[in-house]
Amino acid sequence: MFKKMLHQIRGLLLSSISFAVSPKLVTYARNPPNSSTLEVGDSEGNGYDSHCLSWRLAVEANNVRGWRTVPARCQQYVERYMTGGQYERDTELVVDEILSYVDRIVLPGDGMDAWVLDVDDTCISNVTYYKGKRYGCDPFEGAGFRAWAGKGECPAIPGVLRLYKKLIGCGFKVILITGRDKERLGQVTILNLHDQGFSGYQQLIMRTPEHKGQNAVAYKSNVRRQIVEGGYRIRGNVGDQWSDLQGEHVGDRTFKIPNPMYYVS
Amino acid sequence: MFKKMLHQIRGLLLSSISFAVSPKLVTYARNPPNSSTLEVGDSEGNGYDSHCLSWRLAVEANNVRGWRTVPARCQQYVERYMTGGQYERDTELVVDEILSYVDRIVLPGDGMDAWVLDVDDTCISNVTYYKGKRYGCDPFEGAGFRAWAGKGECPAIPGVLRLYKKLIGCGFKVILITGRDKERLGQVTILNLHDQGFSGYQQLIMRTPEHKGQNAVAYKSNVRRQIVEGGYRIRGNVGDQWSDLQGEHVGDRTFKIPNPMYYVS
Repeated sequence: MFKKMLHQIRGLLLSSISFAVSPKLVTYARNPPNSSTLEVGDSEGNGYDSHCLSWRLAVEANNVRGWRTVPARCQQYVERYMTGGQYERDTELVVDEILSYVDRIVLPGDGMDAWVLDVDDTCISNVTYYKGKRYGCDPFEGAGFRAWAGKGECPAIPGVLRLYKKLIGCGFKVILITGRDKERLGQVTILNLHDQGFSGYQQLIMRTPEHKGQNAVAYKSNVRRQIVEGGYRIRGNVGDQWSDLQGEHVGDRTFKIPNPMYYVS
Repeated sequence: MFKKMLHQIRGLLLSSISFAVSPKLVTYARNPPNSSTLEVGDSEGNGYDSHCLSWRLAVEANNVRGWRTVPARCQQYVERYMTGGQYERDTELVVDEILSYVDRIVLPGDGMDAWVLDVDDTCISNVTYYKGKRYGCDPFEGAGFRAWAGKGECPAIPGVLRLYKKLIGCGFKVILITGRDKERLGQVTILNLHDQGFSGYQQLIMRTPEHKGQNAVAYKSNVRRQIVEGGYRIRGNVGDQWSDLQGEHVGDRTFKIPNPMYYVS
């Protein structure tokens, strides 16, 4: 019996150790079980992340604008969000919602139904680059980003690639609009997109000297105006920045892909 | 020494019990530590909530629209969100953001700077009512809501009351716009707001027969047009529904207060 008791005690000790090595214990250590912070943790995540979750929510709801960097205390949070699975889940749910909207559209068949997609962190991902910028805790730096983009190694965002293929298959004229500079990044962007499965689009519109000095909303609005003046109907518009989705001729419906790493005005 | 050892074992046993009664253990029970679901749980919350977190995020980002009820699987999630602390945290962060915007506004002092606030689940809370509607898993039902609102017992949302007092103190003309029916709920709404500390506003605008048949965007746009035609500048606009913040004359800047319980078109 004593042996059995020892065995049980050993079991309890081991289970305590398994708690001790679990990341959850960090939460307990910082937030004792009776604290209200832990209650937050219970419903929404590790207690010490609840502020960063609020911040991320406010970014996605366009309540927090014009931020230059991710708050320093949220670096680890954003890293786990982007790499731990929740970013993919959030994106997949948005894509499912877009696809159910697409399924309700009846195309008249004149070939003038357009769909606008942003490129960076909408079609293809820069998470690898932003890892080196502490997931957005370091400010944007143009030359470094261009060096990264110049490699042409941005991977497709799987959910958006799935959407893209559906749109092409349905007969939408997909128009990609990016703030990337045509002269410096035109060729590599075309190749990167092609390598990742984004082929068959109607047009890839990039920044040229004529767009110089325009912020994202103005540039993208101008481009969309030309699309509409060309006789197209913009049935949908998807981007990771609110500046992709605001201004003029935004489209019949807009969808925001999550991005807590940077903000483009 | 044996006594000390027994004491340590007792401590371990007690800490195991405290884990056993903690809601966290439910997560472990449903999601073994090695499952990918738990990884999501580690970064964003209980593993089995990660879909509902994605849904809530998509609601706040205006990606999911026109929904009639909260998904059944998210009832417990929304309950915990609304009552466990994260809703308050999310709201407080938005209010802090609004206040930092307010602090940057220079009022010309002509008394024509207006601020628009929605009422239900912006200034005062209906969470108690929605508890009886399974936190939004049951569809909206007008008579029941009017009976609840008719009691005049909606509590202030603390963060928004804090904002309200700041706005009044700064000299903004605060205009409350609500979809509540003036004839049936006018008097009790005025009293409820007053009891909860919302006094000194410029105007409370409610639905009258002239707004019949208008959806929220049309009704609120019409009302705001009259405000602007009256010479006011709408410097800010806060609501828990995207329909509060869209349409015409939305104001210089809009802010979305979280609400995963219902959707108003």
